[in-house]
Amino acid sequence: MKDVHLHTGERIDDLQRGGCRLIQRSDLFSFGIDAVLLADFARVADGSTVLDLCCGGGIIPILMDARMDSKTCHFTGIEINPDCVDLARRSAAMNGQSDRIRFIEGDIRKAGTLAAPALFDAVTANPPYMIGGHGLTGPNYAKTIAKHEVLLNLSDVVKAASRALKLHGSFFLVHRPYRLADIFRELNACSLEPKRMRMVEPYAGREPNIVLIEAVKGGRPRLKVEPTLVVYEREGVYTKELLDIYGKQPEA
Amino acid sequence: MKDVHLHTGERIDDLQRGGCRLIQRSDLFSFGIDAVLLADFARVADGSTVLDLCCGGGIIPILMDARMDSKTCHFTGIEINPDCVDLARRSAAMNGQSDRIRFIEGDIRKAGTLAAPALFDAVTANPPYMIGGHGLTGPNYAKTIAKHEVLLNLSDVVKAASRALKLHGSFFLVHRPYRLADIFRELNACSLEPKRMRMVEPYAGREPNIVLIEAVKGGRPRLKVEPTLVVYEREGVYTKELLDIYGKQPEA
Repeated sequence: MKDVHLHTGERIDDLQRGGCRLIQRSDLFSFGIDAVLLADFARVADGSTVLDLCCGGGIIPILMDARMDSKTCHFTGIEINPDCVDLARRSAAMNGQSDRIRFIEGDIRKAGTLAAPALFDAVTANPPYMIGGHGLTGPNYAKTIAKHEVLLNLSDVVKAASRALKLHGSFFLVHRPYRLADIFRELNACSLEPKRMRMVEPYAGREPNIVLIEAVKGGRPRLKVEPTLVVYEREGVYTKELLDIYGKQPEA
Repeated sequence: MKDVHLHTGERIDDLQRGGCRLIQRSDLFSFGIDAVLLADFARVADGSTVLDLCCGGGIIPILMDARMDSKTCHFTGIEINPDCVDLARRSAAMNGQSDRIRFIEGDIRKAGTLAAPALFDAVTANPPYMIGGHGLTGPNYAKTIAKHEVLLNLSDVVKAASRALKLHGSFFLVHRPYRLADIFRELNACSLEPKRMRMVEPYAGREPNIVLIEAVKGGRPRLKVEPTLVVYEREGVYTKELLDIYGKQPEA
């Protein structure tokens, strides 16, 4: 474990994966269950190159690297907020992951952000969910752009994913079920075929509030819908599957 | 209850809805749980005109009419197999539903089957699921065309639904989850926006094997994903919700 110098307002969260930790800041967007579920849902082969769009504080590549036995994948995270990029780099360094994970400050709408297209075997994204001005937008700009489609929308994210992916590469997306028709439309427009989907219900028999999707560039139509994932057994108590995904019992 | 004359090979099934019954024939496709779930999922306003595509022996309009308190809706069923149309008409007559449900023999791919477009408030369909030559095709032609996309495919069904619907009318479809991306593509191409969706799992935590979808002609994007419906509590025992949908405890 390397020395860590925390700045004012920062804290360290244990990710429950081999001592892996993440630096977070209360005035920036903190990762939620969505990112943890996506990092678990996104299965990539050994030796893959993986791009995370809108990576925030780096939770997804940091967790994906931590949960793989072979440390043969290379991850790139892109984020427009320089403060988040700084946190992400320091978290990776603290965990000894810097040689496998790099973070870039950049706008995914600009094709030049990554020099060449079709570089990656897989792309992950936990993008802002809320449509433009819909929903409450708080006074905190950094949190707003992480949650709302202010700086970029679903179409931008899907286009960036498609551009970055090699043929037959996989795009892993976490989003809200009410956007599903939009998501399928955008994927279809970018030659990304939905191949795997999983709905997440907070409790058994409640409406799903999270959807996980894997789409393959140039894939043939046939979708595998996985069993619905249930988060809570009862109030404050996670289901066994959720505990497995989290690594151990987290506070509810 | 009117007199019923059954022909050789025919039987009568009780639909558990106000004495409503259905004549079935062992050499024709018998209705399954899909049709019962769709008839429950398809909510229409009093006074609606409803079209059922590929209606087979008429189970969907007969059940929908049976479960509505007000008998103010008018149903039309279209079916290409004349033997099924005959069964459907005799079932409706037996139940005293003939003044509200009519059955037409016809090919839904032919625009002239129904004289004018945009006649209906709602359209239902439990079409053949299997792609063209995929899967097993039995020696029985009548059963094969009910299960396989031999005479018509998903695109034909969605086009016919869109043509028949008034603006803002609803299309209710039951299908297989693995076709979901195809379904959304076809709906999108026909200005039918997915507004409600429900996955059906045989047991809790198993892969869904049925999906129910409501799409609205000219609707705005926003999909309501309903709680996953679970069919069996354990082997041979239906869940409470399934029993409610069936009207009482059926044999498993």
